[in-house]
Amino acid sequence: MQIISKIKTMQEKADSLRLENKRIGFVPTMGALHQGHLSLIKAAREENDILIVSIFVNPIQFSPNEDYKMYPRTMEEDEKLCRQMDVDIIFHPETTEMYPEQLLTTVNVSEITSGLCGSFRPVHFQGVTTVVTKLFNAVKPHVAYFGQKDYQQAIVIKKMTQDLNFDIKIQILPTVREEADRGLALSSRNAFLNPEERAQAGILFQTLQIAKKMLDDGERDGNRLACWMKENIKNAPLALIEYAEVCDTKTLKPLPQIEMSVLLALSVRVGKTRLIDNMIWESEVGADLCVCPNLCVCPNLCVCPAQHVYSDKQEQDRCGS
Amino acid sequence: MQIISKIKTMQEKADSLRLENKRIGFVPTMGALHQGHLSLIKAAREENDILIVSIFVNPIQFSPNEDYKMYPRTMEEDEKLCRQMDVDIIFHPETTEMYPEQLLTTVNVSEITSGLCGSFRPVHFQGVTTVVTKLFNAVKPHVAYFGQKDYQQAIVIKKMTQDLNFDIKIQILPTVREEADRGLALSSRNAFLNPEERAQAGILFQTLQIAKKMLDDGERDGNRLACWMKENIKNAPLALIEYAEVCDTKTLKPLPQIEMSVLLALSVRVGKTRLIDNMIWESEVGADLCVCPNLCVCPNLCVCPAQHVYSDKQEQDRCGS
Repeated sequence: MQIISKIKTMQEKADSLRLENKRIGFVPTMGALHQGHLSLIKAAREENDILIVSIFVNPIQFSPNEDYKMYPRTMEEDEKLCRQMDVDIIFHPETTEMYPEQLLTTVNVSEITSGLCGSFRPVHFQGVTTVVTKLFNAVKPHVAYFGQKDYQQAIVIKKMTQDLNFDIKIQILPTVREEADRGLALSSRNAFLNPEERAQAGILFQTLQIAKKMLDDGERDGNRLACWMKENIKNAPLALIEYAEVCDTKTLKPLPQIEMSVLLALSVRVGKTRLIDNMIWESEVGADLCVCPNLCVCPNLCVCPAQHVYSDKQEQDRCGS
Repeated sequence: MQIISKIKTMQEKADSLRLENKRIGFVPTMGALHQGHLSLIKAAREENDILIVSIFVNPIQFSPNEDYKMYPRTMEEDEKLCRQMDVDIIFHPETTEMYPEQLLTTVNVSEITSGLCGSFRPVHFQGVTTVVTKLFNAVKPHVAYFGQKDYQQAIVIKKMTQDLNFDIKIQILPTVREEADRGLALSSRNAFLNPEERAQAGILFQTLQIAKKMLDDGERDGNRLACWMKENIKNAPLALIEYAEVCDTKTLKPLPQIEMSVLLALSVRVGKTRLIDNMIWESEVGADLCVCPNLCVCPNLCVCPAQHVYSDKQEQDRCGS
């Protein structure tokens, strides 16, 4: 396994690999590798001749009030894991190598970056799309792998790749979850959770699972489902909701009337740690759409499988009750 | 010579050329080829194994009030010229191929795009950097060629290429000028000029030449030089100045005190046609800097080679007189 820290060296290596007609798979990471990353690395290993993993904690995707300095850095352990996973090259540039002088250029994706995490992290997606462009141009891969846990990031990158004609296939792979912690989605930030917080963090996946069951059972009112998710998360006293939304899977706009598919997306602070999770639900082919056109008219008259509890007037209005 | 209209086909062709270890030179154009383009094509032909010219009138770099629809399109003639110049491939995509669905992604360069042409053409550089990124990803060149006539564009692209780690060398080649028309810089838009306008359009190059002579003779006051350029352009009654600036060659900010080098940049409407031109002046190595620290204190006491005439109080103030 080779560790490359210079962009020029990485580009020359990529050129020489491409001259040998090697297919290059790429897993961009910020390090602190966990089983989620390893599932991407495993898939990339199987599908390509050469496997390159980048490890770079990208400052420009963090707001000044965020955890850039605190973000876990575990290079020694990451290197060991990469060796075990038969990674060919770790691309590990210094910050000064990636940002040697004042950066004037940014890559910006509009609309699909404005909601969900974009509402709470104003510079985040610009930082992500800019650094991913830089990494793509450094590593020159044929395929790049992203996790569904960061669903908005994944589709933003997919759209950017199409819009800018990057000749790179974007693979989005399923979220990996902790078995021990009620299905908590793996994240480098889980390391910040104390045992009590970790136990309560399971509320995210539990909420998604029940919401999915409600959809399976016929719920088609997006506002009502979003309200229910918020109420359910409040069962975890340490959880502070940033958003709990029911969205179109492509536009990421709230979806009041669910039809064939939907994104359930959550962002919740548990203690000081910001956790996100999501689930895509798709109607089974040939399944009947919701046959409940009157929908819920108030919590007591709800004809859907969920038991709604509204915390305030605004939410009740939003739910149309 | 091959004409390719699909991005995917272009990428596959570029990949197969790179597999053969061919060096690809690229001249992006909007067509209506003239000797300025041909000088880029000639250089690219000499320096590379494969020469690709793109012809694409890019809608997103024109404001709604600009000449997108009017922009000259001469594909048949362009194709003939490319054959004569031994071009290997013309990449000539349709607008719907380049923009098949709603474009959400843009590439933005800040600061160096805000002055000069950026002040008058608000979406222009975003449109240029976005389409050049798309073209780079379609054509996958080793080197790309741009003309100095569009100096701001050239350095914006150079900065974008560095910032985003494009592994592409940017070559900037000198402006080509009409011999017959007092050195008028070649531009596809010159076709819009009637004979009277064409004759007066020579004022741009004449102004740059005299300004250069003033610099050679010791002028170092950027404001005064800019004022002089404006006054001189007014000698052409059909000329309407957009800007006449004396700038730092890298930041493109106005340069009040000239030292080792300077950009003289002009944008002038002659009739309905917008013309730009520029000149880089560099102090000769070892040449004495200006020895005139008192500089000009009023038009009558000017100790510099230029004869200043001020049209209004504001300009006089700016000139420090």
